[in-house]
Amino acid sequence: MSELVSINGKIFKPEDALISVFDRGFLFGDGVYEVVRSYGKILFAVEDHIDRLLKSASRIDLDIGLTREEIINELYRVYNHANSDDMYVRIIVTRGQSERINIDPSQSLKPNIVVYVKSIEKSDPKFYTEGIDIVTASVYRNSKKALDPNIKSGNYLNNIIAIGEAKKKKAYDAVMTNSEGQITEGPTWNIFMVKDGRIIGPPDHSDILHGITRKILKSIALENEFKWDEKYFTVEEFKGADEAFSTGSVKEIMSIRSLDGSKIGSGKPGPVTTKLSGLYKGYIKKYCDGRKNK
Amino acid sequence: MSELVSINGKIFKPEDALISVFDRGFLFGDGVYEVVRSYGKILFAVEDHIDRLLKSASRIDLDIGLTREEIINELYRVYNHANSDDMYVRIIVTRGQSERINIDPSQSLKPNIVVYVKSIEKSDPKFYTEGIDIVTASVYRNSKKALDPNIKSGNYLNNIIAIGEAKKKKAYDAVMTNSEGQITEGPTWNIFMVKDGRIIGPPDHSDILHGITRKILKSIALENEFKWDEKYFTVEEFKGADEAFSTGSVKEIMSIRSLDGSKIGSGKPGPVTTKLSGLYKGYIKKYCDGRKNK
Repeated sequence: MSELVSINGKIFKPEDALISVFDRGFLFGDGVYEVVRSYGKILFAVEDHIDRLLKSASRIDLDIGLTREEIINELYRVYNHANSDDMYVRIIVTRGQSERINIDPSQSLKPNIVVYVKSIEKSDPKFYTEGIDIVTASVYRNSKKALDPNIKSGNYLNNIIAIGEAKKKKAYDAVMTNSEGQITEGPTWNIFMVKDGRIIGPPDHSDILHGITRKILKSIALENEFKWDEKYFTVEEFKGADEAFSTGSVKEIMSIRSLDGSKIGSGKPGPVTTKLSGLYKGYIKKYCDGRKNK
Repeated sequence: MSELVSINGKIFKPEDALISVFDRGFLFGDGVYEVVRSYGKILFAVEDHIDRLLKSASRIDLDIGLTREEIINELYRVYNHANSDDMYVRIIVTRGQSERINIDPSQSLKPNIVVYVKSIEKSDPKFYTEGIDIVTASVYRNSKKALDPNIKSGNYLNNIIAIGEAKKKKAYDAVMTNSEGQITEGPTWNIFMVKDGRIIGPPDHSDILHGITRKILKSIALENEFKWDEKYFTVEEFKGADEAFSTGSVKEIMSIRSLDGSKIGSGKPGPVTTKLSGLYKGYIKKYCDGRKNK
């Protein structure tokens, strides 16, 4: 079995994996999730992902009822059952189901835990070698004062609208701004630009998800004496960057070669982006080698 | 069979109604819905609800693949199968499912259509005779520039957080403001205040769902020579109202007797609220009688 789904611990073939239509994830997007990429048999940075899952859950008062270690063990149990290398592993925890349809979250329900082990949809290699074309979405990123992007939840319509706009314009993806016109993030990735040798990304307090790849990259950048700034920038400032790239757990680092049709820098992956990609791959290898020897 | 669920036309007992965990409603809240209340055997204002469902779907480029009439006929077919009076009828249409987990909405998928026929959770009568206590949520209502509340979708976490805050404070429910501190709406209802004989609610262009009950009430109010204003008001202005009430399809009209512990007017359902409730019930009766004779 290479691909599978576990629902509350029970293993299913993907096509047999069903959930009640009374589940609050299905009704309201009332759940949290994480996606972990495995390299070989190792779930990369799984500790960071599960810490974030627990943080997301806590932000919406969802008691998963399991410790960090219990969740990690369960992920490995399910993943090992699939017995496959290099997979996409998603965990969704919803607030559970009740036959009473009512948005009130204070009912006492048993969470539903769904784990997906799926093949990774490999991106066309040219997106790595040539960079991606993105557009500015017309919708703003959800404000953290309304629905904080740091709650990694089942509410992804803001992001879906943004990527839908990009696809209509034949772009690879979209980036969203806040209501002030400052760049926040893509629908499933953080964004950075490089200007005068400095790596610049939106600050922690902006309307973004605190990406795990973003966090790891920061530590790598600082260790390797890159200059790292966290500050807001506008679409126009971004267009004037020397390089730009996106970060995400599944797609890792991708160079951005244009925004709204304006070429960024040389229009090719720049030296900082290329260097960081290599260092990030090195970090992954070291992490996985360290776990294998355990 | 008094309660049932239909999935893509097939009827199930509620406990047997299951959907794929790859459904985009479950994964991302990527779907739209409506709730219609039936009175006797009549689905009240179903035309307005299905018009709004189609509008919500169009806003997220979801092609339901059915006309207004086909959807209404299908709702009646499922509802008549339940053969029950005075029910809660919910229709959810998601963008469908694919084994590829990817938020890109431009894939060509077949929507999943789920219809629920459930008993109405009757509210304690005292909420009608005495009014409800509400609090101001700390989260702002989603901005229409980010995720328009007029898209009645599977993304309800903003609303869930608001009502969760209210329940922690032992209040009945919460009302949300926009980032300017102006009142928008409750998690599942529109809000109005009465001041100096005028009925005042947030304007159409505010961050609210255009409620069907709100729309009907406006026509009733104007027909009966009430003064009807649509303009913004703050929490403080609301506290100085003579009366206040909420409107929603299931709960109809409920008097609001306090906000954040401040009594509104006399703290009891006021004359305008009471008059409007009666007129609204009259409107429902007329609508249903008209349909029965067809």
